[in-house]
Amino acid sequence: MTPGSFDFSGRIDRARSVMTAAGLDGLLVSVGPDLPYLTGYEAMPLERLTMFVVTADDAVLVVPVLEAPRVPPGPFEVRPWAETEDPVGIVAGLVPDGGALGIGDHTWSVFLLRLQAVLEGVSFRSATLVTSVLRMRKEPAEIELLRRAAHATDRVAARLADVKMSGMTERDLSRQVGRWTVEEGHDLDTSQIVASGPNGASPHHEPTERVIGEGDMVVVDFGGKLGGYCSDMTRMFVVGQATPEQAEVHDVVQVAQRTAVDAVRPGVMAAEIDEAARSVIEEAGYGEFFIHRTGHGIGLEGHEEPYIIETNREPVEAGMAFSVEPGIYLPGRFGVRIEDIVVVTDEGVEPLNRADHELITVE
Amino acid sequence: MTPGSFDFSGRIDRARSVMTAAGLDGLLVSVGPDLPYLTGYEAMPLERLTMFVVTADDAVLVVPVLEAPRVPPGPFEVRPWAETEDPVGIVAGLVPDGGALGIGDHTWSVFLLRLQAVLEGVSFRSATLVTSVLRMRKEPAEIELLRRAAHATDRVAARLADVKMSGMTERDLSRQVGRWTVEEGHDLDTSQIVASGPNGASPHHEPTERVIGEGDMVVVDFGGKLGGYCSDMTRMFVVGQATPEQAEVHDVVQVAQRTAVDAVRPGVMAAEIDEAARSVIEEAGYGEFFIHRTGHGIGLEGHEEPYIIETNREPVEAGMAFSVEPGIYLPGRFGVRIEDIVVVTDEGVEPLNRADHELITVE
Repeated sequence: MTPGSFDFSGRIDRARSVMTAAGLDGLLVSVGPDLPYLTGYEAMPLERLTMFVVTADDAVLVVPVLEAPRVPPGPFEVRPWAETEDPVGIVAGLVPDGGALGIGDHTWSVFLLRLQAVLEGVSFRSATLVTSVLRMRKEPAEIELLRRAAHATDRVAARLADVKMSGMTERDLSRQVGRWTVEEGHDLDTSQIVASGPNGASPHHEPTERVIGEGDMVVVDFGGKLGGYCSDMTRMFVVGQATPEQAEVHDVVQVAQRTAVDAVRPGVMAAEIDEAARSVIEEAGYGEFFIHRTGHGIGLEGHEEPYIIETNREPVEAGMAFSVEPGIYLPGRFGVRIEDIVVVTDEGVEPLNRADHELITVE
Repeated sequence: MTPGSFDFSGRIDRARSVMTAAGLDGLLVSVGPDLPYLTGYEAMPLERLTMFVVTADDAVLVVPVLEAPRVPPGPFEVRPWAETEDPVGIVAGLVPDGGALGIGDHTWSVFLLRLQAVLEGVSFRSATLVTSVLRMRKEPAEIELLRRAAHATDRVAARLADVKMSGMTERDLSRQVGRWTVEEGHDLDTSQIVASGPNGASPHHEPTERVIGEGDMVVVDFGGKLGGYCSDMTRMFVVGQATPEQAEVHDVVQVAQRTAVDAVRPGVMAAEIDEAARSVIEEAGYGEFFIHRTGHGIGLEGHEEPYIIETNREPVEAGMAFSVEPGIYLPGRFGVRIEDIVVVTDEGVEPLNRADHELITVE
């Protein structure tokens, strides 16, 4: 992320307003995406506590002294702590010993336990009550970064169409995808699932030494980060000729994916988008093999609100970005998933990925 | 990690004994290294809860249904939860609603808050009370993996000596280090700090577009994971001729590092090892510029117990592995750090890194 390219002061002010409205007396934000959202600074996920403390009057970043030089200037005070100081005590001294505080979802439990021990009169709640309200509705500059990241993945998908996959291991292909993800413009690659043949039936398969061979369906699900924002895309490949069943399952998922995207517009419940995809798959007789939700929000975090799941009856709004990624998983045989990132617009929906959805034949 | 290559049943039994001795009625272990240590399975750090529940009688892995196929067989029950189930309720049903439970340090706070809401009668404590007792004392097979990882970093350091650094950006050199870290045998690269010239004064500097030039001191601090176990190594480079001051500061750090390693043997307090390095640097007049502890334990986690810091009065024991990495950081000018991983043996110490400690001159 380029520090200074966002209005952190405005974000902190809005967080403070939402915080007060939610009955919270302060926010304690540590590792994870809330911190870069509010400050432009990402904490190292290590044993030394970094914590951004927002109260009605103050905004203070408590940070290990040896990481302090990494902190960009911003509309907050920086309080470095030395190796022999107690950072939990420093944080406790910045908040009222009573009332309610919101704590960042990803904050390590060991720090929450220590804070609870020191701040006995405080009731702790999830800071996501506050931060998700802000982070879910993307600013235009955030959408532009998501768009650039999505287009970079589109270019990786185009390069994949020319790969001779037969004879490669899943792991080698996964590494290739990771390199291309960076070459096409991401700052880093974060995930490269390559799941071939029967491995495709595991949605979160970890690439193995399995050698891809003739007749294999291959799920490639990958993404990275660009300017702090995530991409996430899945396309399907088949080595040689698809069987009629492979082609049919792919067709069903393709129709389900398009139907769900077509259902997206402001005011539609997340559950309705999920249902749009699910009903196509159920009607085709594969309902029991669609074992996950239809999508997840995306932004600074790869998975964030809103979740596109049957239990989420909240309406989507303009500015929300999420994946639409139905799948069918046939245990021991193969799996199919197609995934794009979309953004809700005032009029309806903008798919950020533009690559074709067809089953891609490779050697 | 190769599932099955460790005695997970024995580890779970030992965890249960330590747990009972510590007055805990159960352990709840989620993301982070405790889970692969006990089960061979690493949880995805995502919003779907994975939690390993160990009680006096049971060992159950609660896992999202779409990640369940990734779980290797082991001496525990697997309880997959479907997208519309509540995993916190499932975990709560597996433990007594009273007494004390240990919760894994890295567990996301949002899950601890939900567990506390459901299990009102339970007192939660850090599971590290239990797991660090086990994980700190490495088994021979763990030390062998640490040794192989360390030797792989030694080979990367040797390749770095031949690099023409002048004209490269920190970021490009960092990427090169990452690629070599994998080429030399790691499963993945995890960290590649390249901090040149004045950037070297920030111990946890993030590589930038700064172009490395004549006269720069360059800190290269890197590592990866091999079979689940971490490496971590730092060597110093200078482009062209070192100034007398650069050479002197490097000499001081080199002597401090060696002095600290020589101080390691069973029964010596961690604080004494820290003091061994610190006193050399203080006597040379640079005490105020050594702004971090001397080292950290290493294993499944890059930083873990024991911490080699002046506040840690626990003795080190045979089988413990940690870094020894003193440094001197001159703000606005340059920094120097030298880091090896060492293991405490019955007789004294085995440095796992073998690469030379001299300041390496490059073009």
